[in-house]
Amino acid sequence: MRKIIKNGVIVTATDMYEADVLIEGEKIAAIGRHFEEAGAEIVDAAGCYIFPGGIDPHTHLDMPFGGTVTKDDFQTGTIAAAFGGTTTIIDFCLTNKGEPLKKAIDTWHQKAKDKAVIDYGFHLMISEINDDVLEQLPNVIEEEGITSFKVFMAYKNVFQADDGTLYRTLVAAKELGALVMVHAENGDVIDYLTKKALEDGNTDPIYHALTRPPEVEGEATGRACQLTALAHSQLYVVHVSCAQAVEQIAKARDKGWNVWGETCPQYLVLDQSYLEKPDFEGAKYVWSPPLREKWHQEVLWNALKNGQLQTLGSDQCSFDFKGQKELGRGDFTKIPNGGPMIEDRVSILFSEGVKKGRITLNQFVDIVSTRSAKLFGLFPKKGTIAVGSDADLVIFDPNIERVISAKTHHMAVDYNAFEGMKVTGEPVSVLVRGEFVVRDKTFVGKPGHGQFIKRNKYGKQTVPKQGSLSI
Amino acid sequence: MRKIIKNGVIVTATDMYEADVLIEGEKIAAIGRHFEEAGAEIVDAAGCYIFPGGIDPHTHLDMPFGGTVTKDDFQTGTIAAAFGGTTTIIDFCLTNKGEPLKKAIDTWHQKAKDKAVIDYGFHLMISEINDDVLEQLPNVIEEEGITSFKVFMAYKNVFQADDGTLYRTLVAAKELGALVMVHAENGDVIDYLTKKALEDGNTDPIYHALTRPPEVEGEATGRACQLTALAHSQLYVVHVSCAQAVEQIAKARDKGWNVWGETCPQYLVLDQSYLEKPDFEGAKYVWSPPLREKWHQEVLWNALKNGQLQTLGSDQCSFDFKGQKELGRGDFTKIPNGGPMIEDRVSILFSEGVKKGRITLNQFVDIVSTRSAKLFGLFPKKGTIAVGSDADLVIFDPNIERVISAKTHHMAVDYNAFEGMKVTGEPVSVLVRGEFVVRDKTFVGKPGHGQFIKRNKYGKQTVPKQGSLSI
Amino acid sequence: MRKIIKNGVIVTATDMYEADVLIEGEKIAAIGRHFEEAGAEIVDAAGCYIFPGGIDPHTHLDMPFGGTVTKDDFQTGTIAAAFGGTTTIIDFCLTNKGEPLKKAIDTWHQKAKDKAVIDYGFHLMISEINDDVLEQLPNVIEEEGITSFKVFMAYKNVFQADDGTLYRTLVAAKELGALVMVHAENGDVIDYLTKKALEDGNTDPIYHALTRPPEVEGEATGRACQLTALAHSQLYVVHVSCAQAVEQIAKARDKGWNVWGETCPQYLVLDQSYLEKPDFEGAKYVWSPPLREKWHQEVLWNALKNGQLQTLGSDQCSFDFKGQKELGRGDFTKIPNGGPMIEDRVSILFSEGVKKGRITLNQFVDIVSTRSAKLFGLFPKKGTIAVGSDADLVIFDPNIERVISAKTHHMAVDYNAFEGMKVTGEPVSVLVRGEFVVRDKTFVGKPGHGQFIKRNKYGKQTVPKQGSLSI
Amino acid sequence: MRKIIKNGVIVTATDMYEADVLIEGEKIAAIGRHFEEAGAEIVDAAGCYIFPGGIDPHTHLDMPFGGTVTKDDFQTGTIAAAFGGTTTIIDFCLTNKGEPLKKAIDTWHQKAKDKAVIDYGFHLMISEINDDVLEQLPNVIEEEGITSFKVFMAYKNVFQADDGTLYRTLVAAKELGALVMVHAENGDVIDYLTKKALEDGNTDPIYHALTRPPEVEGEATGRACQLTALAHSQLYVVHVSCAQAVEQIAKARDKGWNVWGETCPQYLVLDQSYLEKPDFEGAKYVWSPPLREKWHQEVLWNALKNGQLQTLGSDQCSFDFKGQKELGRGDFTKIPNGGPMIEDRVSILFSEGVKKGRITLNQFVDIVSTRSAKLFGLFPKKGTIAVGSDADLVIFDPNIERVISAKTHHMAVDYNAFEGMKVTGEPVSVLVRGEFVVRDKTFVGKPGHGQFIKRNKYGKQTVPKQGSLSI
Repeated sequence: MRKIIKNGVIVTATDMYEADVLIEGEKIAAIGRHFEEAGAEIVDAAGCYIFPGGIDPHTHLDMPFGGTVTKDDFQTGTIAAAFGGTTTIIDFCLTNKGEPLKKAIDTWHQKAKDKAVIDYGFHLMISEINDDVLEQLPNVIEEEGITSFKVFMAYKNVFQADDGTLYRTLVAAKELGALVMVHAENGDVIDYLTKKALEDGNTDPIYHALTRPPEVEGEATGRACQLTALAHSQLYVVHVSCAQAVEQIAKARDKGWNVWGETCPQYLVLDQSYLEKPDFEGAKYVWSPPLREKWHQEVLWNALKNGQLQTLGSDQCSFDFKGQKELGRGDFTKIPNGGPMIEDRVSILFSEGVKKGRITLNQFVDIVSTRSAKLFGLFPKKGTIAVGSDADLVIFDPNIERVISAKTHHMAVDYNAFEGMKVTGEPVSVLVRGEFVVRDKTFVGKPGHGQFIKRNKYGKQTVPKQGSLSI
Repeated sequence: MRKIIKNGVIVTATDMYEADVLIEGEKIAAIGRHFEEAGAEIVDAAGCYIFPGGIDPHTHLDMPFGGTVTKDDFQTGTIAAAFGGTTTIIDFCLTNKGEPLKKAIDTWHQKAKDKAVIDYGFHLMISEINDDVLEQLPNVIEEEGITSFKVFMAYKNVFQADDGTLYRTLVAAKELGALVMVHAENGDVIDYLTKKALEDGNTDPIYHALTRPPEVEGEATGRACQLTALAHSQLYVVHVSCAQAVEQIAKARDKGWNVWGETCPQYLVLDQSYLEKPDFEGAKYVWSPPLREKWHQEVLWNALKNGQLQTLGSDQCSFDFKGQKELGRGDFTKIPNGGPMIEDRVSILFSEGVKKGRITLNQFVDIVSTRSAKLFGLFPKKGTIAVGSDADLVIFDPNIERVISAKTHHMAVDYNAFEGMKVTGEPVSVLVRGEFVVRDKTFVGKPGHGQFIKRNKYGKQTVPKQGSLSI
Repeated sequence: MRKIIKNGVIVTATDMYEADVLIEGEKIAAIGRHFEEAGAEIVDAAGCYIFPGGIDPHTHLDMPFGGTVTKDDFQTGTIAAAFGGTTTIIDFCLTNKGEPLKKAIDTWHQKAKDKAVIDYGFHLMISEINDDVLEQLPNVIEEEGITSFKVFMAYKNVFQADDGTLYRTLVAAKELGALVMVHAENGDVIDYLTKKALEDGNTDPIYHALTRPPEVEGEATGRACQLTALAHSQLYVVHVSCAQAVEQIAKARDKGWNVWGETCPQYLVLDQSYLEKPDFEGAKYVWSPPLREKWHQEVLWNALKNGQLQTLGSDQCSFDFKGQKELGRGDFTKIPNGGPMIEDRVSILFSEGVKKGRITLNQFVDIVSTRSAKLFGLFPKKGTIAVGSDADLVIFDPNIERVISAKTHHMAVDYNAFEGMKVTGEPVSVLVRGEFVVRDKTFVGKPGHGQFIKRNKYGKQTVPKQGSLSI
Repeated sequence: MRKIIKNGVIVTATDMYEADVLIEGEKIAAIGRHFEEAGAEIVDAAGCYIFPGGIDPHTHLDMPFGGTVTKDDFQTGTIAAAFGGTTTIIDFCLTNKGEPLKKAIDTWHQKAKDKAVIDYGFHLMISEINDDVLEQLPNVIEEEGITSFKVFMAYKNVFQADDGTLYRTLVAAKELGALVMVHAENGDVIDYLTKKALEDGNTDPIYHALTRPPEVEGEATGRACQLTALAHSQLYVVHVSCAQAVEQIAKARDKGWNVWGETCPQYLVLDQSYLEKPDFEGAKYVWSPPLREKWHQEVLWNALKNGQLQTLGSDQCSFDFKGQKELGRGDFTKIPNGGPMIEDRVSILFSEGVKKGRITLNQFVDIVSTRSAKLFGLFPKKGTIAVGSDADLVIFDPNIERVISAKTHHMAVDYNAFEGMKVTGEPVSVLVRGEFVVRDKTFVGKPGHGQFIKRNKYGKQTVPKQGSLSI
């Protein structure tokens, strides 16, 4: 079955032009003008942009955290993602010390496989490095197709790795062709500051921010960059929230180090004052790193514009306010960290970024899709609109205005952090490998359509060949 | 007449994939697989890359300089450009104080129109700003399609503009939608140093470099950046040659200022020691800014990789060694500045950049073509391979090895600055607006095929519409 | 006649201790404890600090400016200086193009010699550099004892020198042993902005600030620093007013360049909003560079603390509000630039700096006295309290509170820029070369007591010998 | 008994002048000219400088290390120090986890008290922070007079503290008035690199340097600076060896953070190639941080000149080559770290710094004496030549040339790291609190003369009063 998407304006990280897109099976077969093919299903995209499907490089679905589990699983989470214009996610596979990595990966496959409506890959969390773990890594990369590892510099006594572990991971990644991701906050200092806050009776949500000041993020970011340079390796700093961290990344990149940075929608539009909302509502806005003072937002936007930061992850990690976030009443350290972000990531960048003139349309596509595809070994299967690529497409109406609300969102969580925010632009229809998942704002996909994607090594790019297709 | 280029690997600033390109008339009509169209001419590009035609944003053809004139005119120059994989140039139109700008532009049109074998645009040199000039600028932009102005901070008493002129040009460019280009060297200091060198009897070519130290370039670059920030305008620094200038540009960009930088092939692979060649041969390597100590090269490559510098211009400005460069025997200040660079620009970046792993293939395309198209208002007519764009294409064999030499080059000048250098990769065939100019390494174009391109304003991009084409 | 100052706490740039100071004639003869010398006059300094007399490195007394002349001459100016704790000034000797430098110097000697009540030296303003001027410079340094030259980068078509002049001055200074001072603002850009403001009918005093934005100071400062590095010379940036200039100086010093910076009291405590005072009162606050937004003050204080800036000059240049400042009604460019600062320089630094914990007492002494003595070749004759040094001493009560006011100040001008400001700490008595000029807050000096001081070359320090004194 | 030192040139961090110094008992009683006092012992210092006694802020005497103990104890070590012009040392008191701090301090007092020939203070090493330790700190400061604490970021599983400990120490120091010192190297990374080197059979001394690259020092230095800023505290970085660390300190200081840096003689004049000396001789040059490539030296000198680094410590920590350094044959990690530096610290800075024009005489005094006195609460009792200060004086002949050698040095160790190096300038006589310890290059002191000095809190300075002395 062929489809022809007509009359839309195709936008990639480089290009923008009107043309028809011919889809054959799962792939883009041709791009041209006035395709008139008998038997093809015609999809009219007049007045809309056609974007490559969004790639969310940072999600936590069905993830256990401090005795509870995130509200969205791979079904509700990927449905919400699809509505938001995202067609691929890369979720973090947690590991347990001493347990075979394969076991953790299998667990994650179980969580995803019959539920996902869009495609997905996994990052692997590394909590320790020893000979046993090192022996397993080549298999993880070569066989499992998991080519990025995450190391936590925070969450002391839980996930936190010491610098030796980080450094060895960087060295191994360099040798094996993987990308190291860091959660860059100084966990030791945070540990002290949180204990002290609790001792002093400071238990409200705002103390979550006050005990994780931007300096601890800036410090850890700089440290990770310097260890990367020493290891001649490559680094991706997740959820950059503040000027101090941007400064370190910019400096590293100016020196020619292979350092990349991701920010998240919440840091671009929300600020620390949200944590002071009354009636414990501040708990809805508890992320790590925390929301910052408002002036940091301009620094982050500028960094996206200038290429100091390259991607936007949602850091989706949703917990209900009722019953979950509330676990932290009287002790902010017990508030589950994270929020429901997977659905509005693309819209917010379009509305606040493109519409307000902060970034170009091409930069927008690069940030929400292409760059993640390239960094994480998905390109050009994902991340672009080109012949031979997967037909992961978003038909996007740039002029629709809507108000974000938990009442209308598709996540399984009882609040939305952007409640009441007006955005311009919305995905109308979304295809994953040639099949509609959302059509005219209605869900038409099915759980299990989503496939696990084995990713290429860092820096490697496959070139789609002609042999597999005919037109 | 239609053409189908088959079996090549298309590379743009973002993409890389195998596909056929269908050309209809001057435009790319479709991209897909296994196009089988009756009546179309089939061009086999197997084993080759298909690049968007190179855009050289910096040439001086048929340009008078100090009593002589550059050896290459729009015919020999554009033929050489085509052989090198360049399908569009932007040449500098010199103006004379007091003379209407239109007159200067007409003169430049006369130089080009029956000679050029590839397309071309003009930058306008601004030597003074007064009410009269300011009144003419809107017409230059709107009617003449010249949307970039160059200001010289060097060449005291000749081209040099004072800071007031530079600032006013920046202000006007901001208002009118143009991009200001600067030749950033401190002309006052150079003037003193050259006079002093001559007084001291230091007349050899090496003194050209010693009297224009990198500090004077760094200083002027920083000054231009700061004035740009003050004017909230946009700046393009031509022919960046040294670490000091890169440092200033990087700092400006980190601050979010709209500053762009170009380097040239000679600064990437040649160094100051060439100026000391015996028998006055050093004169062949006299550019302004001059060649630098070798360590600057790594800084420049790093800046291309990191995006601190964005483009590669040839600064083509050729003079014969015999009879022209020789004018400076006994007085280095009389050596005509410039060299024959238009032909090898693309090859050198491919061979030294891509093949040596310093930049990616996509970055290569961005640097030699796409970014210049975007910055100078040619995109997407030029600078990409997309439906609706001009069929300016380079079929490039990445594995051919050749030795650069004046004996085989196509420029009208009696030496080649890269004489004897081995490069890998060569354009095999080159099309401009759908017509072959070079085919299988043979010139098949014709003078006058090249068209003048009216360029868009800075930051503006046209979107090719479907109406004009059918397939 | 000997004097013994007893019971005070001596403070130098390094030391702080209680001791008696024995003065013999003009010099400090001994420092010790419980000196009991028959015949000596005993001065009780109990409860007071004894500071080395302040050195004001930047004054304009009896200076013609735009058809008028500064209100304070060497008599009123130096009396006011003495009341403020300053015992030496270095005044700027203006030169006229084409006129012998000696003539300008003689003119300045005439202005000073029978009037000054404290000691003084001259800086020489350099408006042009040619062979004729260069020939005179060795004499200026060796015979006239004038070892610092000032170059203006602003005041286009009046004082402004081009970069060639600045560079040649730097080269000459390096060779001859002088220190180059710059007024660092980009005069070309200011010229354009002021003309444009007037054209737009923006004539109020605030436009003085708006047409000299901090960026033009930052730019010129960076330029001067870079030319200094190129010339391997030494530079002193006068009246630094803003963060942009501090950033450039800090960067230069971090690179090891010989760059020094001075700020002024007004930039530390006043801000741009003063220029908006009604009834044209803003004209009282017209300096070049202009007052800045308030946040710059913290940057300046920090720079004094960290040693990025080293000295505090008054830039004394007083004009009456009535009849002089008023010349600029309806055209801010006609407001005489400058203000009455010579009297309160020391007090303000003590009160706002030391008392508020921003700098230490030793830093205070260094900033108001010692560093200027060292940079300008006065040390150790001036600038310290040591055996063999001139007995230029300030007996300073750190606890007196007073309110600055034109009603009580000693300058000949009809307003005080700090009117109504409370300061803590005040000079009680002041000696110049062993003689009281102010005693118990009463003027007891006499015009003509002040001597012209021939200064050492840059970087040279004389060592007082014992032979000339006996005790 | 009074002494009068005549005819010398007194040099302090600010001043330089000829005068006589009258010593009464332990103190400087007066400074003046031609003192002629009956009964006073006359000391002729003609042709010599009189410096304040050197203060070595960083020594390890009688220190156990890896099963052995440093060769020099408080007797041989302080005798050698005295010969070198040092009159006060601050030695590091090691603590053991779980043991009362007082016990460690008492142990250190035992080591010193009957042996030291010059004065001394202690720094306290902090290996852990818990409530118990925190409770003891006020007593350490108030009663024991130990006002500086050292934290190690290296020596994993031995001395290394985690970032929480460092941060808490900074917070406590801020509250209590102490200065935190850090050994800034990333111990985790070093641990990995050393293990890997040994696994790979790389056991020679050069691997000591290769497994502690400058990046790990730069990283840790930056981290410590950032934590200091967060804690609003004060930091002293010991033994800075490389450009990467200087860059971090300079940046911190430019931001106004209270960060200070010390370098050591070995980093100024020796380089990494020394570790490659044959016959295991490289082991003599094993310090942590290690010697660096030669180009770092210029950066360090520049930092001393510009005030980015402020002090020079010896890091005296001597082990015999025979029997001690040799413990590391076949395993560089077993080489005792450290070297014999206490004796030549002052001479090397004078000879290489002052004589070669890199720093001024006043800077020299500041670096070897005054600044340490001020930072560590010894001023003005120590660190200057002023009335009321201890008569700790060095009579220094600036023109003597000598060759450093183990054959002639006074340390108890069998080699000298500067063997064969020519230096100009040597202490002739040295007084500690008015008594000669070295006279005419002969030791005349006695063990036990040295006193323990209780130091002031950070930032506090006592003012010597007149009451205690009469003349």
